[in-house]
Amino acid sequence: MAVGSGVLSELYPVSGVRIGIAEAGIRKANRKDLVIFELAAGSAVAATFTSNAFCAAPVHVARAHLAAAACRYWLINTGCANAGTGEQGMRDALQSCTALAHLVSVDEKNILPFSTGVIGELLPMDRLMAGLPKALENLGADHWLRAAEGIMTTDTRPKAASKKIVVDGKTVTITGISKGAGMIKPNMATMLGFVATDAKVAQDDLQILLQAVVNKSFNRITIDGDTSTNDACMLAATGQSGCVLSASSAHWNVFAQAVEDIFVELAQAIVRDGEGATKFVSVVINGGKNSDECLRAAYAIAESPLVKTALFASDPNWGRILAAIGRSGIQDLDTSRINIFLNDVQIVQDGGRAASYSEEQGQQAMSPENIVIRVELQRGAVSETVWTCDFSHDYVTINAEYRT
Amino acid sequence: MAVGSGVLSELYPVSGVRIGIAEAGIRKANRKDLVIFELAAGSAVAATFTSNAFCAAPVHVARAHLAAAACRYWLINTGCANAGTGEQGMRDALQSCTALAHLVSVDEKNILPFSTGVIGELLPMDRLMAGLPKALENLGADHWLRAAEGIMTTDTRPKAASKKIVVDGKTVTITGISKGAGMIKPNMATMLGFVATDAKVAQDDLQILLQAVVNKSFNRITIDGDTSTNDACMLAATGQSGCVLSASSAHWNVFAQAVEDIFVELAQAIVRDGEGATKFVSVVINGGKNSDECLRAAYAIAESPLVKTALFASDPNWGRILAAIGRSGIQDLDTSRINIFLNDVQIVQDGGRAASYSEEQGQQAMSPENIVIRVELQRGAVSETVWTCDFSHDYVTINAEYRT
Repeated sequence: MAVGSGVLSELYPVSGVRIGIAEAGIRKANRKDLVIFELAAGSAVAATFTSNAFCAAPVHVARAHLAAAACRYWLINTGCANAGTGEQGMRDALQSCTALAHLVSVDEKNILPFSTGVIGELLPMDRLMAGLPKALENLGADHWLRAAEGIMTTDTRPKAASKKIVVDGKTVTITGISKGAGMIKPNMATMLGFVATDAKVAQDDLQILLQAVVNKSFNRITIDGDTSTNDACMLAATGQSGCVLSASSAHWNVFAQAVEDIFVELAQAIVRDGEGATKFVSVVINGGKNSDECLRAAYAIAESPLVKTALFASDPNWGRILAAIGRSGIQDLDTSRINIFLNDVQIVQDGGRAASYSEEQGQQAMSPENIVIRVELQRGAVSETVWTCDFSHDYVTINAEYRT
Repeated sequence: MAVGSGVLSELYPVSGVRIGIAEAGIRKANRKDLVIFELAAGSAVAATFTSNAFCAAPVHVARAHLAAAACRYWLINTGCANAGTGEQGMRDALQSCTALAHLVSVDEKNILPFSTGVIGELLPMDRLMAGLPKALENLGADHWLRAAEGIMTTDTRPKAASKKIVVDGKTVTITGISKGAGMIKPNMATMLGFVATDAKVAQDDLQILLQAVVNKSFNRITIDGDTSTNDACMLAATGQSGCVLSASSAHWNVFAQAVEDIFVELAQAIVRDGEGATKFVSVVINGGKNSDECLRAAYAIAESPLVKTALFASDPNWGRILAAIGRSGIQDLDTSRINIFLNDVQIVQDGGRAASYSEEQGQQAMSPENIVIRVELQRGAVSETVWTCDFSHDYVTINAEYRT
């Protein structure tokens, strides 16, 4: 199941980025599972990684390599997360970089490794190594869609977004891909997002921009509240468009907004393809005193199994929304001021059932694929939005049978 | 679904307690849904209530009445939670006390009301009032099992526990009932527990004892992480056995342990009957620096939809357990010291797959109905245990169809 058509718009190549894909047989035969991104020399690369204390071997290696040298290649495999694999896992992540470095004549530290898939199994190194030359053989600028397919796990469809903007008379392209359908509550990144632009941006500005847009996109989604061990999100700026941008330049905001749009589209695509998802749900909290309490309320609703199963059933069970807010830990919450809306239908007024509300209205508001739950706390001026999906039989089926 | 046979042992009457039950038709016809407990004059009564900010009307009224006067009656209905019902809900809760007070000739403040069921609907007052005399007609000491049946909602079976101990040559009886199968993550109480003893215990001692045993029982279970709006747990001491106990007396520990045993049995019965449950899971965290970090790790595991669906599938997917610990927010966690056991099978050693471990062992450990997940953090001397159940298709079915 998934929400919406999933049809992708045109994906524009990014000058300075070439992508190669192979079927390496990491876990299953006859599927794309190895992706190599080549970035032009001189590219700036920003990164965010998982906050899970059990971060995977490739996350350790990618962090260290990025700190030590300029990044030229992203090496990504699906099918095996290389997480919880101890020292052998670290050796394997390093060795995959060394092998690719040898083939493309760069230092191994110019390569960042990424893995996704089952936790706790060792990488099949023979098959991975054999896949490297195959992926390099087809390096090309037009392979963004195939790359999006090549990083999928339980995803039912590829996720990608692309945009061209004109800045200061020059055309700048931003294109990215993401993956993820379960174990999704990113915290400083998601598993996985790869975005590139041909703008020229200094490393520091790029890192600050990445953190800002990740906080408005990947860090605002949850499918099951489980933060992955392998989350990583990358943003590269190749500079090949000739458009030079810095955070202090007049055109920065236009560029930053375009990057944010791409990130939000990629993050929402993950939720729309959430494991077993039949609904795409925006949880909007208005009138909070601060961002923290808005997010508490939003995540309490978005992660409540009772709210999520009611959404699956298209049941306007507003008592469950109200109970979730009540347990979210907001200090001195005056429940009698709370209003709740399902799309445009007011279901709760002053902390109780709205006088104007009928079950028919509620059912009607719950029936579309896209639902907005809007909560008015009426205690401040801060708003936050979190995106999530419902909880269906298919979620249980997918996760009960994942390894079989 | 439910775990274990659910067969109850003998329920001993508690001298000084009589119980009446009626079929009032609160939500459905032909089922017990109204229960009245009568406590002998002079009984001490201790209570804990939900920490949900949206607490239900009867919780507000019960708190106020308990603070104002001696408690003589517990009036409980199932089928309607009288939560999120605003001022009308408060009036209804008060009116139900007034009506019972009139019938039994006590002050309305001597009566505590409790409601469980669907949130956001008004109590059907006509039917509730008509049920009161019917329940009073059959007041009797032997009705604990019928009372346990009369407070069920999505529970598939009644929950009760009973024990006799000899203290200082006198026989003391402790008997209790509980209910709950979903929206279960009690925080200072559960929805609902009613326990009585015929020991004579002062009010202050009884309240301290109740809080201590609730912390070791109802506050250590989670089914779906959702704290109810109506949680309440009551402990009455009628004093009719003639056995006088105080916290400073020599026999207190024997009595306190017996009360704790009853509470743990009632709390575990809720988990065994968790919505859709097929497994009863004890999550044991050893070697923590303090109770807080042990509970963080325990609840991260116990509430992870990915761990719970793997438990449903009897899949020893230890990577999900490891990932849950990793995101639980323990400060400076050294993941390389962590060992994890499924029953007696070591699955994780030093933060990675145990060398001795085979999938066959893991599957064998996962197949029984009762499973212990034991995590050794090796960073301190504190332990905590939390009880939970798995996450099955039936959970989704039950909660998607609850109101239909």
